[in-house]
Amino acid sequence: MDRERLRQLLENVRSGALDPDAAAEALSDVPFVETEHARVDTHRALRHGLPEVIYAPGKTPEQIVEVMRVLLRVEQDVLVTRLEADTAEFVVSETGAEYDPTSRLLWAGRQHVPLEGKGTIAVVCAGTSDLPVAAEAAGVATRFGNKVETLHDVGVAGIHRLLDSSRLLRSARVLIVVAGMEGALPSVVGGMVDKPVIAVPTSVGYGASFGGVSALLGMLTSCASNVTVVNIDNGFGAAYVATLINRL
Amino acid sequence: MDRERLRQLLENVRSGALDPDAAAEALSDVPFVETEHARVDTHRALRHGLPEVIYAPGKTPEQIVEVMRVLLRVEQDVLVTRLEADTAEFVVSETGAEYDPTSRLLWAGRQHVPLEGKGTIAVVCAGTSDLPVAAEAAGVATRFGNKVETLHDVGVAGIHRLLDSSRLLRSARVLIVVAGMEGALPSVVGGMVDKPVIAVPTSVGYGASFGGVSALLGMLTSCASNVTVVNIDNGFGAAYVATLINRL
Amino acid sequence: MDRERLRQLLENVRSGALDPDAAAEALSDVPFVETEHARVDTHRALRHGLPEVIYAPGKTPEQIVEVMRVLLRVEQDVLVTRLEADTAEFVVSETGAEYDPTSRLLWAGRQHVPLEGKGTIAVVCAGTSDLPVAAEAAGVATRFGNKVETLHDVGVAGIHRLLDSSRLLRSARVLIVVAGMEGALPSVVGGMVDKPVIAVPTSVGYGASFGGVSALLGMLTSCASNVTVVNIDNGFGAAYVATLINRL
Amino acid sequence: MDRERLRQLLENVRSGALDPDAAAEALSDVPFVETEHARVDTHRALRHGLPEVIYAPGKTPEQIVEVMRVLLRVEQDVLVTRLEADTAEFVVSETGAEYDPTSRLLWAGRQHVPLEGKGTIAVVCAGTSDLPVAAEAAGVATRFGNKVETLHDVGVAGIHRLLDSSRLLRSARVLIVVAGMEGALPSVVGGMVDKPVIAVPTSVGYGASFGGVSALLGMLTSCASNVTVVNIDNGFGAAYVATLINRL
Amino acid sequence: MDRERLRQLLENVRSGALDPDAAAEALSDVPFVETEHARVDTHRALRHGLPEVIYAPGKTPEQIVEVMRVLLRVEQDVLVTRLEADTAEFVVSETGAEYDPTSRLLWAGRQHVPLEGKGTIAVVCAGTSDLPVAAEAAGVATRFGNKVETLHDVGVAGIHRLLDSSRLLRSARVLIVVAGMEGALPSVVGGMVDKPVIAVPTSVGYGASFGGVSALLGMLTSCASNVTVVNIDNGFGAAYVATLINRL
Amino acid sequence: MDRERLRQLLENVRSGALDPDAAAEALSDVPFVETEHARVDTHRALRHGLPEVIYAPGKTPEQIVEVMRVLLRVEQDVLVTRLEADTAEFVVSETGAEYDPTSRLLWAGRQHVPLEGKGTIAVVCAGTSDLPVAAEAAGVATRFGNKVETLHDVGVAGIHRLLDSSRLLRSARVLIVVAGMEGALPSVVGGMVDKPVIAVPTSVGYGASFGGVSALLGMLTSCASNVTVVNIDNGFGAAYVATLINRL
Amino acid sequence: MDRERLRQLLENVRSGALDPDAAAEALSDVPFVETEHARVDTHRALRHGLPEVIYAPGKTPEQIVEVMRVLLRVEQDVLVTRLEADTAEFVVSETGAEYDPTSRLLWAGRQHVPLEGKGTIAVVCAGTSDLPVAAEAAGVATRFGNKVETLHDVGVAGIHRLLDSSRLLRSARVLIVVAGMEGALPSVVGGMVDKPVIAVPTSVGYGASFGGVSALLGMLTSCASNVTVVNIDNGFGAAYVATLINRL
Amino acid sequence: MDRERLRQLLENVRSGALDPDAAAEALSDVPFVETEHARVDTHRALRHGLPEVIYAPGKTPEQIVEVMRVLLRVEQDVLVTRLEADTAEFVVSETGAEYDPTSRLLWAGRQHVPLEGKGTIAVVCAGTSDLPVAAEAAGVATRFGNKVETLHDVGVAGIHRLLDSSRLLRSARVLIVVAGMEGALPSVVGGMVDKPVIAVPTSVGYGASFGGVSALLGMLTSCASNVTVVNIDNGFGAAYVATLINRL
Repeated sequence: MDRERLRQLLENVRSGALDPDAAAEALSDVPFVETEHARVDTHRALRHGLPEVIYAPGKTPEQIVEVMRVLLRVEQDVLVTRLEADTAEFVVSETGAEYDPTSRLLWAGRQHVPLEGKGTIAVVCAGTSDLPVAAEAAGVATRFGNKVETLHDVGVAGIHRLLDSSRLLRSARVLIVVAGMEGALPSVVGGMVDKPVIAVPTSVGYGASFGGVSALLGMLTSCASNVTVVNIDNGFGAAYVATLINRL
Repeated sequence: MDRERLRQLLENVRSGALDPDAAAEALSDVPFVETEHARVDTHRALRHGLPEVIYAPGKTPEQIVEVMRVLLRVEQDVLVTRLEADTAEFVVSETGAEYDPTSRLLWAGRQHVPLEGKGTIAVVCAGTSDLPVAAEAAGVATRFGNKVETLHDVGVAGIHRLLDSSRLLRSARVLIVVAGMEGALPSVVGGMVDKPVIAVPTSVGYGASFGGVSALLGMLTSCASNVTVVNIDNGFGAAYVATLINRL
Repeated sequence: MDRERLRQLLENVRSGALDPDAAAEALSDVPFVETEHARVDTHRALRHGLPEVIYAPGKTPEQIVEVMRVLLRVEQDVLVTRLEADTAEFVVSETGAEYDPTSRLLWAGRQHVPLEGKGTIAVVCAGTSDLPVAAEAAGVATRFGNKVETLHDVGVAGIHRLLDSSRLLRSARVLIVVAGMEGALPSVVGGMVDKPVIAVPTSVGYGASFGGVSALLGMLTSCASNVTVVNIDNGFGAAYVATLINRL
Repeated sequence: MDRERLRQLLENVRSGALDPDAAAEALSDVPFVETEHARVDTHRALRHGLPEVIYAPGKTPEQIVEVMRVLLRVEQDVLVTRLEADTAEFVVSETGAEYDPTSRLLWAGRQHVPLEGKGTIAVVCAGTSDLPVAAEAAGVATRFGNKVETLHDVGVAGIHRLLDSSRLLRSARVLIVVAGMEGALPSVVGGMVDKPVIAVPTSVGYGASFGGVSALLGMLTSCASNVTVVNIDNGFGAAYVATLINRL
Repeated sequence: MDRERLRQLLENVRSGALDPDAAAEALSDVPFVETEHARVDTHRALRHGLPEVIYAPGKTPEQIVEVMRVLLRVEQDVLVTRLEADTAEFVVSETGAEYDPTSRLLWAGRQHVPLEGKGTIAVVCAGTSDLPVAAEAAGVATRFGNKVETLHDVGVAGIHRLLDSSRLLRSARVLIVVAGMEGALPSVVGGMVDKPVIAVPTSVGYGASFGGVSALLGMLTSCASNVTVVNIDNGFGAAYVATLINRL
Repeated sequence: MDRERLRQLLENVRSGALDPDAAAEALSDVPFVETEHARVDTHRALRHGLPEVIYAPGKTPEQIVEVMRVLLRVEQDVLVTRLEADTAEFVVSETGAEYDPTSRLLWAGRQHVPLEGKGTIAVVCAGTSDLPVAAEAAGVATRFGNKVETLHDVGVAGIHRLLDSSRLLRSARVLIVVAGMEGALPSVVGGMVDKPVIAVPTSVGYGASFGGVSALLGMLTSCASNVTVVNIDNGFGAAYVATLINRL
Repeated sequence: MDRERLRQLLENVRSGALDPDAAAEALSDVPFVETEHARVDTHRALRHGLPEVIYAPGKTPEQIVEVMRVLLRVEQDVLVTRLEADTAEFVVSETGAEYDPTSRLLWAGRQHVPLEGKGTIAVVCAGTSDLPVAAEAAGVATRFGNKVETLHDVGVAGIHRLLDSSRLLRSARVLIVVAGMEGALPSVVGGMVDKPVIAVPTSVGYGASFGGVSALLGMLTSCASNVTVVNIDNGFGAAYVATLINRL
Repeated sequence: MDRERLRQLLENVRSGALDPDAAAEALSDVPFVETEHARVDTHRALRHGLPEVIYAPGKTPEQIVEVMRVLLRVEQDVLVTRLEADTAEFVVSETGAEYDPTSRLLWAGRQHVPLEGKGTIAVVCAGTSDLPVAAEAAGVATRFGNKVETLHDVGVAGIHRLLDSSRLLRSARVLIVVAGMEGALPSVVGGMVDKPVIAVPTSVGYGASFGGVSALLGMLTSCASNVTVVNIDNGFGAAYVATLINRL
């Protein structure tokens, strides 16, 4: 139950449209619902103003469905991240949720999330191999109520492509920059704008990429001062923080 | 020359208070001034709305003074970071700048920087040994025109101290959380607020702290989704990003 | 043969219930029984007061059954750890042992192990993905004769859930705290109690988790002084030490 | 103020020996005393039953003296760790505390701490270079009210020396084993006793010792199940946990 | 063609038993035979006095058979290492070689290799999981003409088992000690004998074992001075060097 | 003695200007001259066409002078690298060589080295702190007979400065790009030119720079295919290879 | 469209052989063609004088075919690298391209690429396991218009094989040296020639090879000054740079 | 007391030259003498046939002298390693021992140690910077009763120097090869001989040498099978093992 729905429910009580008893029942769930495998935090949307997010790895399809049902029962939107296609099939068939294989995101809830972000979040990525992480960031930011602009395939070794898009970059309120290998893109983008840049290293690459470590280190030591960093492949985290910033 | 001064100058031209020739001369510096050792970017304040910052390590006191003079000549505020006390003495005597030994910051320019941040930046730190980094973050944020609240000595092993300050934490618009050792503080603070948290690992600790690596890894893998990370001991970078966010 | 059984046997000899010759035969096994692949230490329970434990990885099902039979012949309880479900099937069918798929523990021996621990061991874990390791710790501690309380899904980013359980935490004599990612939970729990806390890092996480290294480092550098650490995913080791402590 | 003193004070109030007003004043310090540089936790001894411990590195002699005075004013014992000899000189002259250069411990408070540990803590170390860490562990354990036995210079490459001391090892209730280089001593000692062993890696060694990392890894992967590990050189932490265990 | 065969051949020429032309043909192979995929060094046995060894990983079964045929044609013994069981099947069927699945060694050539080592090589290993590496070492040493004694399952946490075998250890001329996890066994064995000890770390273990790195570091930093180290899992290399030493 | 001098000497013999005996004496030094501490390779210039280079660290001033004298006696130019200022003073006073404190290079030999490189070597660096390494590269390349263009203070976070210099970059035949921190500059430069780029990571930076490792990894994983890498701070090596390329 | 074709096209316009309109159409593609998944840079060959190269990992067969078609439509040669055999089958069937399974290279375009390199590129490798990387380097260099000589199976432990080939090595204009394990080959080769050596570490090896890290470090710290390094297994990158050098 | 002296003493008793009481007194020292800071093992020479060795780092000059006196009293030779020049001065003045500053070895005892090694130990090193470690190895081997041949400055990048010395290398019974940087020398030497090669990595180098780690890894992954490795800079350990081998 998010803030807007809570406000609506209380409004309905005041207006007489809703019986206090029914309202009480709707509110009766304690913040935690204990399922067999987890405490589900049904008031999270209320506290943080965002849908509940389920991180799929390590959970069985049955556990995911179990938690989703608890949340959907209290009319809370649900976003599942890092859901592999084969697992998604079962969850979709059980819950009717939407699934996007590129970003590996699954969504259940309102069709259209109202825009709550004040400006645009730009999601920039270097190569086609970084697309899944960028798609996760863009998909999450959209589901969290932001206008999102994406810019793909603009690596630092072809700097002219990036410069061609400087208007788009400068018009964003927050930027998420996704890059693997040497992870230099956030530094260059960071120097082109005066807005916060959230850098996401990806595990793309081989050899001395060390599963994203090189990109991570490159971003942490960026010579652009407006860059902060999240974990390797953490498109979700970047979108989460960008959303909080975009609501300020 | 920052935006406000530029606007004022042009206003003066329009009002006749300033002769166009004099204005031209004032504007005549190309964006770069080449000194013996560096290209000084005199329009940076104009482009980014922030004073020029000089990172002291690896520069001689003479080089620092040389760059400062170029900037002060075009009436730009200057902030020097990581300036050791013994080097500072010479710079202060040459330029009359203010120096704070805890944060190792040196400042030359306007006495009072107008508040441009819309809310408060909270600077939180775990232990007394993290104080220098926290002081750098707080000092920079203040010089960049923000209202700053500080909260010290609230480690996660004494969680009650932290909870006692939850009102202060929740009232901030952006939070900078500084911690060494296991670097767990940003996760706990992140769970208490719904604002962006910028985590700064410090090189404090011994043994398996590995000069801040443990804290860095802990922050990158934080289970709180509203946490982004900057480089070890990078109080300046945290304050820079927090400033950009606080101006949104 | 554990101490209790040895005492009973000697008691029976004294009382005449057991013929000295039969007793001698029962005691005749030398401490080591050489099987084809291993020296089995049949007096371990006697020396350490705990059942023999077989670490399954790298052993064939046949080897496991071979060692189990040697031990069961001398009436010693057997606990097998890290046994994958497919291997377990064969072992169960050959020996009639009990198997739990979550903790991957297999048990053969007495149905009820007498309580020998003086207090309660609390097993606390952060997220649902840490459950297998926590289940191993809880299962082993139970089989070793301890009263065990478990507390799941209490991550540091939702500190209120943890505080709600402070009574449970404070009532334990020893605590095992299991966490992946940044591994901050032992620090927070450690600050809430004045009992020994055994921290178990898990390999849960991605990117900068580095297979549990981040959690491990976080625990080693914990700012709570009552925390000691065991190897990544080593729920067994934590339960073993907790058992020794709980018998003091 | 520790528990015993608190009990005594309340007893005195009940018996009329102490005026309620005086008692109130004695208790009036809130748990935190804010000094210029730190919140001092004056009730820590009360909560945990141990003296306050000050970790010296990163603190100036003046800061250490300032905190000590706050604590001594409320009659709390103070232990300072990792205090270098040159800093110690000032602190001793200001406070009259005792200082031991080998363990780098400084103590202010009661001359004789009553024995509260139920058994003996054995402190074992491999080589003469590990002595400072072992001395820290032994010194802290003694100041925390334990009977301590020490055993030095018993490396695994001269296993007979260790075996000669097996009686001493087996008579301990808890063991602290300190070793650098390959860190194998805790494994061997762990196999000789059925009590908890707390392993302390030291930064002694060169080359592939990597400042204690090799010893740390060796201890974490010990084949003895009764071994837990603390941070490199953390003799204090080992003694702290051993004390908690010895009071059970 | 090894030295002995070369000597025999020349002897036969002298005695008239072999026609010089036939001898010339037998010797006509240049030291390198170029096959499609490799230069085969047919005189290696001559130069080093050992059979040619083929390291299987990265080679197809066909490549292995191709090289073996070149060598067998010049009557040179062939030893293949690290040959997986499924690949071995094809090689055995093509060449009639002998294969041992535990050590993953394949042998083609003389049934009995004459003893050329002057003493015994002891191969000692800690746990059952180290057996494959120990078996490789023992198998190679045997094929290289050494008398080999093996001692299994003597971990440092059960030091008495090791001491029971001290006579066997002391009677060896060279020792190969195989261990995973903390890799402490070579230190203890090294302290018990005054002969060279070749330590082989194994990749056995989990978590902080890091695929054998912990054992490797432990062996490199051994406090026993008679220990040298080979690569992780390199049972072959240990046997090779032990053979050279045993021939001195 | 380099090739040119050898040719000249032989020419002089042919023309009668030089007596064959004198020529023989001049050529009589065997390729190695054994000094007390090193074999000096007096024909290196002949073989490789470059002056002898002495790497100063780990050598005493006396050893450096000793080797220089051997080389100067056979009229070979000498370049000393990484010579600290205090050591240089002694060497200069003994040999009359030239010393440059920024690049830490010392030179003894011909005043003007003839240009042998066919084009220009560009030496580009990111920040003022990278200057010493860039100066070493530029100084060595000059002494090795190349035309050198330098471009300083063009970091990737201010991409416009770099683009302003694209003509200079494109006119070079080989480029040496020096950068610390995230080491992104070679990628961007590499994308702007179609010539070989030799990347030199520097140890400049703090925290997650890890003494140049981040820059090194960034360069190794560069998305620009025309980038190769040398060791951290190895300005000399970069100039050496650039020289070889520039002579092709 | 490469430079030669562009020149030809313009020549045809001048000679009247090509209608300006047709020429315009041929040139009408903007430098980027946007396909569904990537911006294809159709003028790359024009800018850099080399065919477009597609790095296969992370791309579906369909994406590869899609990009290839765009490029082939503008008559540009296409080289695909790191294409696994099973994926290649589909691409070959769709496009009729040539595929080599050892080097994992796929080629579509002109049958014979004109020689543009001025000398020979030598590709040297240590063991048979390094062959795939060496084959990639040799294949790419050939397709890029170079004469290539290959030398296989010349490890440093059999130094005479290498010396036998010194003539071949010295006749090359650029050398690519491929090696795994200790990566020493480039140092030895580097000492034998006075031409640039590009070292390619391979991920071949086990244990302390750490997936090529040991070879990489060995090459970066090579005592031969004419060695530069590319990423682990990056045969393509080595060939790319060698091509640029060979065209100088 | 070493074996020879023990035999002599018993011989004297048999012949009547020594009174049994005097002999008893001479033998009366228990194997350990407890000094204030260490248990000194006075029978070590007897057990291992080598003088006692004192590792100086971490010991005060006074402690070293104290241990030396205990040993000298029982007529045992003493070798001190890694003794810095300033500490040595005191020890020499107190004990009259000999000190060599290059190898940092100090020796007290018999002037001439009888040759007990059966052949020659060759000590080979790559560069002048590796000399201290090579000198330690050579000095220790000499003091341990071996004939030692040294070969300096034979790096792999100048392979001809090494080949010139192949006779010397082949005549050794055991070889110690010392190298920093890429550590390739043992591989090349290992391929030239059929004797055991003990490789000693040195901490010489900068950047990616990582204090000897690169050399260490290169040696562990050597493609020469007769190479074993000791710790970084451990010239002593190499000499110790070489001595044991040379006595076989």
